Amino acid sequence: MILPEFEEFLLTHEETYLTPASEVVVFADSHNTDHVMLLLASNGYSRVPVINKERQYVGTISVSDIVRFQSENDYSIEELASLPIAHVVNKEMATISPTASMTKIMHKLVDASFLPVVGDEGEFVGIITRRSILKAVNSLLHNFADGYDIRKKEHES
Amino acid sequence: MILPEFEEFLLTHEETYLTPASEVVVFADSHNTDHVMLLLASNGYSRVPVINKERQYVGTISVSDIVRFQSENDYSIEELASLPIAHVVNKEMATISPTASMTKIMHKLVDASFLPVVGDEGEFVGIITRRSILKAVNSLLHNFADGYDIRKKEHES
Repeated sequence: MILPEFEEFLLTHEETYLTPASEVVVFADSHNTDHVMLLLASNGYSRVPVINKERQYVGTISVSDIVRFQSENDYSIEELASLPIAHVVNKEMATISPTASMTKIMHKLVDASFLPVVGDEGEFVGIITRRSILKAVNSLLHNFADGYDIRKKEHES
Repeated sequence: MILPEFEEFLLTHEETYLTPASEVVVFADSHNTDHVMLLLASNGYSRVPVINKERQYVGTISVSDIVRFQSENDYSIEELASLPIAHVVNKEMATISPTASMTKIMHKLVDASFLPVVGDEGEFVGIITRRSILKAVNSLLHNFADGYDIRKKEHES
């Protein structure tokens, strides 16, 4: 478990590491696959959350998900183009609850570049990215001594 | 600046956050662009370092670099395919010296998902990724108290 002092410091910086849903680029699951492909290729995001019209989290989508789906399901380019992205969406990605501990967040971020934050009713709350956690951790590494004394333990020889 | 105690802890964990060149997937700058495109699409890496035959760092390459290069330079698919990747390589990415401080590493990793580590002679030493730094930081957040006492400062009211 993360030391309680660090956990406390980081959790009080939630506004620095949680990107709220209103600021996250997302796709509606009704968007056509060709449109999503074009946006992914042009906007520089490698993976984007997908939500339904109730603003619930459905999954994520990347260029490689679309390429893989096409090759596995033998769609023509034309058939794929007009297919709603709901059929292609990747549901493998780990998500996290809005009340998750920092221990759990850090653990899951080792294996994913971002975590969709999903509430009890499936609502999409936002994302926590490696980048944003690094900013919060960086703040801790710089400023922790403002509130705490740190002293090297004496080792008996 | 990062607190000296944290800097010391993290620097002693270099083996956990530096991926040595021998373990990094790289492309030779003499590889053809179509070959690189295929590898990038199939191996799941979004950006890969490029080295020359002296094993010096040249830059990095991503699918979007190749697409952008093609659209900006008006190459046909056939012309682009046989072009060595040296002509397409992205040289914009920040690199870091093997002796960089943790303060500098953390600062640069806020804006890049990984940092190529490049020696004085241009030699490619390896990479430091957000993922690997998160592992080292996670170790610090869990184990720092083994060597240090942490006490909350008293605030006079």
